[in-house]
Amino acid sequence: MKIITNKIIYLCTALLLVLSLPVFGQDHPNLILTRQGVKNIKASLGKAPLFDQVLAQTIAEVDKEIALPIEVPIPKDMAGGYTHERHKRNWFMMQKAGVLYQITEQEKYAVYVRDMLLKYAGMYPTLPIHPTDRSYATGKIFWQCLNDANWLVYTSQAYDCIYDFLSEKERKILEEDLFRPYADFLSVENPRFFNRIHNHSTWGNAAVGMIGLVMNDKELIDRALYGLALDSNQKNERDNDGGLIRPDGQTKAGFLAQLDGSFSPDGYFTEGPYYLRYAIFPFLQFAKALANNKPELGILEYRDNILKKAVYSLLYQTDANGLFFPINDAQKGMSWNAREVITAVDLAYFHYGKDPMLLSIAEKQGKVVLDEAGLAVAKGIADGLAQPMRQKPIAYTDGPDGDEGGIAILRSSTAPDNELCLVMKYSAQGMGHGHFDKLSYSLYDETGEVMQDYGAARWVNIDQKGGGRYLKENNTWAKQSIAHNTLVINETSHYNGDIRIGEKHHPDLYYFHGAGDVQVVSAKSGNAYPDTELHRTLILVKDDHFRHPILIDVFRATSAENSQYDLPVWFQGHLLLTNFEYEAELTSLNTLGDGHGYQHVWKEAVGTTDSGHAYINWFSNGKFYSMTSVVEPEDELIFARLGANDPDFNLRHDPAFIIRKKDKKNATFVSIVEPHGSYNPVSELAEHPFTSIAKASILHDDASYTVIQFNNKAGKTWTLSLAHKNASAEATHVIRVNEKTYKWQGPFKLMNNN
Amino acid sequence: MKIITNKIIYLCTALLLVLSLPVFGQDHPNLILTRQGVKNIKASLGKAPLFDQVLAQTIAEVDKEIALPIEVPIPKDMAGGYTHERHKRNWFMMQKAGVLYQITEQEKYAVYVRDMLLKYAGMYPTLPIHPTDRSYATGKIFWQCLNDANWLVYTSQAYDCIYDFLSEKERKILEEDLFRPYADFLSVENPRFFNRIHNHSTWGNAAVGMIGLVMNDKELIDRALYGLALDSNQKNERDNDGGLIRPDGQTKAGFLAQLDGSFSPDGYFTEGPYYLRYAIFPFLQFAKALANNKPELGILEYRDNILKKAVYSLLYQTDANGLFFPINDAQKGMSWNAREVITAVDLAYFHYGKDPMLLSIAEKQGKVVLDEAGLAVAKGIADGLAQPMRQKPIAYTDGPDGDEGGIAILRSSTAPDNELCLVMKYSAQGMGHGHFDKLSYSLYDETGEVMQDYGAARWVNIDQKGGGRYLKENNTWAKQSIAHNTLVINETSHYNGDIRIGEKHHPDLYYFHGAGDVQVVSAKSGNAYPDTELHRTLILVKDDHFRHPILIDVFRATSAENSQYDLPVWFQGHLLLTNFEYEAELTSLNTLGDGHGYQHVWKEAVGTTDSGHAYINWFSNGKFYSMTSVVEPEDELIFARLGANDPDFNLRHDPAFIIRKKDKKNATFVSIVEPHGSYNPVSELAEHPFTSIAKASILHDDASYTVIQFNNKAGKTWTLSLAHKNASAEATHVIRVNEKTYKWQGPFKLMNNN
Repeated sequence: MKIITNKIIYLCTALLLVLSLPVFGQDHPNLILTRQGVKNIKASLGKAPLFDQVLAQTIAEVDKEIALPIEVPIPKDMAGGYTHERHKRNWFMMQKAGVLYQITEQEKYAVYVRDMLLKYAGMYPTLPIHPTDRSYATGKIFWQCLNDANWLVYTSQAYDCIYDFLSEKERKILEEDLFRPYADFLSVENPRFFNRIHNHSTWGNAAVGMIGLVMNDKELIDRALYGLALDSNQKNERDNDGGLIRPDGQTKAGFLAQLDGSFSPDGYFTEGPYYLRYAIFPFLQFAKALANNKPELGILEYRDNILKKAVYSLLYQTDANGLFFPINDAQKGMSWNAREVITAVDLAYFHYGKDPMLLSIAEKQGKVVLDEAGLAVAKGIADGLAQPMRQKPIAYTDGPDGDEGGIAILRSSTAPDNELCLVMKYSAQGMGHGHFDKLSYSLYDETGEVMQDYGAARWVNIDQKGGGRYLKENNTWAKQSIAHNTLVINETSHYNGDIRIGEKHHPDLYYFHGAGDVQVVSAKSGNAYPDTELHRTLILVKDDHFRHPILIDVFRATSAENSQYDLPVWFQGHLLLTNFEYEAELTSLNTLGDGHGYQHVWKEAVGTTDSGHAYINWFSNGKFYSMTSVVEPEDELIFARLGANDPDFNLRHDPAFIIRKKDKKNATFVSIVEPHGSYNPVSELAEHPFTSIAKASILHDDASYTVIQFNNKAGKTWTLSLAHKNASAEATHVIRVNEKTYKWQGPFKLMNNN
Repeated sequence: MKIITNKIIYLCTALLLVLSLPVFGQDHPNLILTRQGVKNIKASLGKAPLFDQVLAQTIAEVDKEIALPIEVPIPKDMAGGYTHERHKRNWFMMQKAGVLYQITEQEKYAVYVRDMLLKYAGMYPTLPIHPTDRSYATGKIFWQCLNDANWLVYTSQAYDCIYDFLSEKERKILEEDLFRPYADFLSVENPRFFNRIHNHSTWGNAAVGMIGLVMNDKELIDRALYGLALDSNQKNERDNDGGLIRPDGQTKAGFLAQLDGSFSPDGYFTEGPYYLRYAIFPFLQFAKALANNKPELGILEYRDNILKKAVYSLLYQTDANGLFFPINDAQKGMSWNAREVITAVDLAYFHYGKDPMLLSIAEKQGKVVLDEAGLAVAKGIADGLAQPMRQKPIAYTDGPDGDEGGIAILRSSTAPDNELCLVMKYSAQGMGHGHFDKLSYSLYDETGEVMQDYGAARWVNIDQKGGGRYLKENNTWAKQSIAHNTLVINETSHYNGDIRIGEKHHPDLYYFHGAGDVQVVSAKSGNAYPDTELHRTLILVKDDHFRHPILIDVFRATSAENSQYDLPVWFQGHLLLTNFEYEAELTSLNTLGDGHGYQHVWKEAVGTTDSGHAYINWFSNGKFYSMTSVVEPEDELIFARLGANDPDFNLRHDPAFIIRKKDKKNATFVSIVEPHGSYNPVSELAEHPFTSIAKASILHDDASYTVIQFNNKAGKTWTLSLAHKNASAEATHVIRVNEKTYKWQGPFKLMNNN
């Protein structure tokens, strides 16, 4: 009898063991949430206020939604339209409901996800390609495969969360009618979408890999990691944005190839931070899922922690308010409050060394993700560990090998809440979303943009404006050189505005000095125009004689032919004053030119001065700014405004100031930008409304050296000496100008001769 | 011996009594602060945190200032320039230092005031008229007497605070060399400045009266209260703004005449809230000083508490963020955070019944004045008494007798933080700062301006823009009718843009209904144009079928001659969509006209529609708005933008939409404005981006009645019936339209036929 009893106990134990074993030998959830992670979360409820708060908000949001009938409409609309927005909402709701099911154990959440998934499974097998046919890779649920992939990245998490709740039969239906064909559609049926080194494909890879991990489908997982076989026929194909489907030299595809090819070695993403913000999400989600399920891959440490570097590069490419620099195609207003960045901050904190500066960003975000990483962040904040984020000046390289130019960020402040931040772009083309803006800069302070980059001509998800897609003005205006704060020669954009030329070239960093009171970045481009050398040096100076840091801009162009040189600044604000006379167009306006973006610009006024320098003074967001530029008497000083050739009112009507040098072989532009005062419309007091710069001049300028002098109104004098042919910090330079000897070491020297 | 001792004690007591008696039989301070008040403040330190905080800030500010050398430069500059700003800073610093001397008893503050005053006394006797000579009443310290009066209103307080600290000799110097001649200069030497019914003179009266009270100079006090003898020679003289120095019918001058003549019986100030904010300060300061010193005048209760009504009218003429409606000449951005309004709120709280709603404004201001009133407010806040300010819909009359038209404010909200606020202006001309904007409206929501009033063409105290004074574009643009949301006939401003005509007339309120879900204001003007009747009815509707309140605008014009009728809306934001085709000017722009403000407007596009209604949809500050207007096929639908004929870049480049009806005797415009959705650039989600209005039409329109119908996209129908000839709430109206009978009671009826 005892033996029998023991046997029964043994059998029962074995049976229990089998029953509690996951189907296919897996535990669920296993993707983003894990069983142990959920246990930890449950044990920590009530101990991390921010986590509890987000949980309560999510419960309220999902409870409101699941009280309504489930809607899974036949796909029809573009972004902004009903079916698009409904399916998008569905993926968010399913993912959230799945998480709530795990944390609260309330079946209503699982039922909601199950019922919605079964509706999708009922529709999917007979669903044709989306009727819009506007994309190089049209989806089924949405107008482009990209959005279909978005859906699966979220929905795979929902499926994982309710996996154990479903019957085997339900799982069979979902996998056979929905998930497997869905994954095949995104991959084998759309190799042009799946096999690129591009954010679209990152989403595709992650989507296929994540559902593969939930289904324990090795074929899908391998497809996601290593891509499909490359098809050499795609070599000359391009996507809707003009980006190459398969550039020369691409030898591999899939998620690991994305990790190798999407970032420079220091984490810069060639499309810029707006798209990095978008792409980082599938990178991190799939990586986390791989770390949970295939730890042997060491994915979070892959390529010397490339994902950590990517997260930090994202957080570093922001202004003082956390808004991303709108480099390349980018909608302004996007910031580190984006849901993708919340995920990025939480994951980076949890997996990459618990950096307390990340907690201060999480505090500003006011949200955490509902997983172990979010819990760790909420606990860190509750424990008072947060420290202010200090973004250091930095130069990022571009290109997978870090040898395709880059971008540099200089930052200087005279008070903690008062930072002048300069971004210089000398990067590679940035694929289909790249702009022709070599050696351009943009400038930010605590109020936002001082010298703006236009960003993209697009209203994302606003149906009224071309279905929320890129507008034609994105090509005709936003990508053109004149739309940026950089030199335009003969009214022609860099690389003739041709991506096929642009993607073959890049400028190069000459030197970067990112420390101390005089920060400098200097870069050269020898290929933006034929037979022309461009060399720009930007210097951010903190000096007690100025209330705020100032920017010195030295732009040299050397050409084989006589040319017209236009250097615009898209200053943000309202012009107050100049030191020169100008003739304004009073009763009619005409365009500044007829192509390369010039057709979109109204010419408002033109002036000249023989004083040697042009001074403009403007007002924006309660602050006064000035720019003092060295000019020659024959230089045209043009005030212009965007908005011409704009039949659908797609463009903003922003102002610009353009210094034009005509019929010259060489041109050297020198400007000093100074933020200097403030005005409060309530007190109506103006403080320091005028520049403190009295004069600027070029003492010497040749192929080897440029020496600039400027003075303030108190009679102090500064001399800036630049060496153009040797960036070595050790090299010594000596030149004689006006019977005075200038001697310095290294490529630049700013001296205060007072 | 005892007798002698007693005598000595008696003598000593008498001596002490004499010594402690104020000179001239007065206590000091006696003006704004009083001896008892200072005692109370000292006893309350540490008990009212906001008061303590302001005191600490003031000490820090003044301590920093008095560490620097005193600067009393020879006057030279316009507003914004050095000498102007320095003397302005001096008056603030002296006033604050005086108060600090009283509260802290630290002599350094009294020394600072004394030394500065003696410098002024040393300069004043030989000081000529200010060299600028740009004002109808040029000052000595400043470019206009107005600023000189400002100085004395503040400085008289400083003198009062250190009066007892000064030696008799010092007082003699100050009074004989500075204050008495200063007061004479502002009054007897500048009767054109001193004797008006105008905010300039209020400052002048208060300045002379306040220094008179400190000096106990009955002549000055009487001069301030009752003015100088009126000079009939001034009858046709005008000031820099075109305002009359002495209008017909003015029979008295001085402070009491200002109280009688500056406000309507319900506290509306004819120049508008921007100027009321400025004028209220000397009104309240001098009134408080009179209440302290001449209680027999009962000044705070004068004219049925007119000063209380004025303070509330100021607080009611604000949008949801406390910004004043920019009626007439007004710089935008001015708000209830202005220092003058802090004084007004504190004084109204202390003297007029301790209204707990005022405390919530004081909380937002975050400041109190350093006197007994400020102390009471700080205590009220500390005691948790503050209640939210609820500004009710209200109609203010204009004119001293309340019979010169007025302005109406309608307010409606679907949530506490979401208010649609309409301002309709049918007031009198508003003196030299008045605009030709009869029957105009402006519209505000929680984000600010939806339909803007341009405000003034002026950058107050910004020297770069015309010395901070009114720009020529203030006359050529900002005052003109086309700059406002009102009807313009034959491209000519109301009253032909002539103040001499405008100040003789005003529109009249037809009726006002300011309660409930359907709020209405209706007004008529029979004199803005010859032989033309204008009648506008504005209806703010809250209805569950719309997410936010909507505005219905019915504007009828009836003229003897065939005319062109332009009805502009200066919508704030970026145009997204229309329901009609338009032809945009692509390569050149021309002005919309050549005078009355039209010369400043670029014509950007013109369209038409035979659909019966024109729909425009725009985006601003994260929100979507739409306007649906009933139009005829021949109506021109014009998109325009400000900025032409602007040689100095003085104007903003704001957009407008104009419905133009040509060659008609009568014109009826009907529009429905709906705020309906939102967009967040971080989530990139657009909610309700399109209007819910499907259609609008005019069912009937004649001299007696107009019946309007509109439908939403869900097929619901509303009918609005208006009676034009009888505003009685009791009158019953019946008309038959399209074989259907409409019957209603009162001047308006909105019916939902669902």
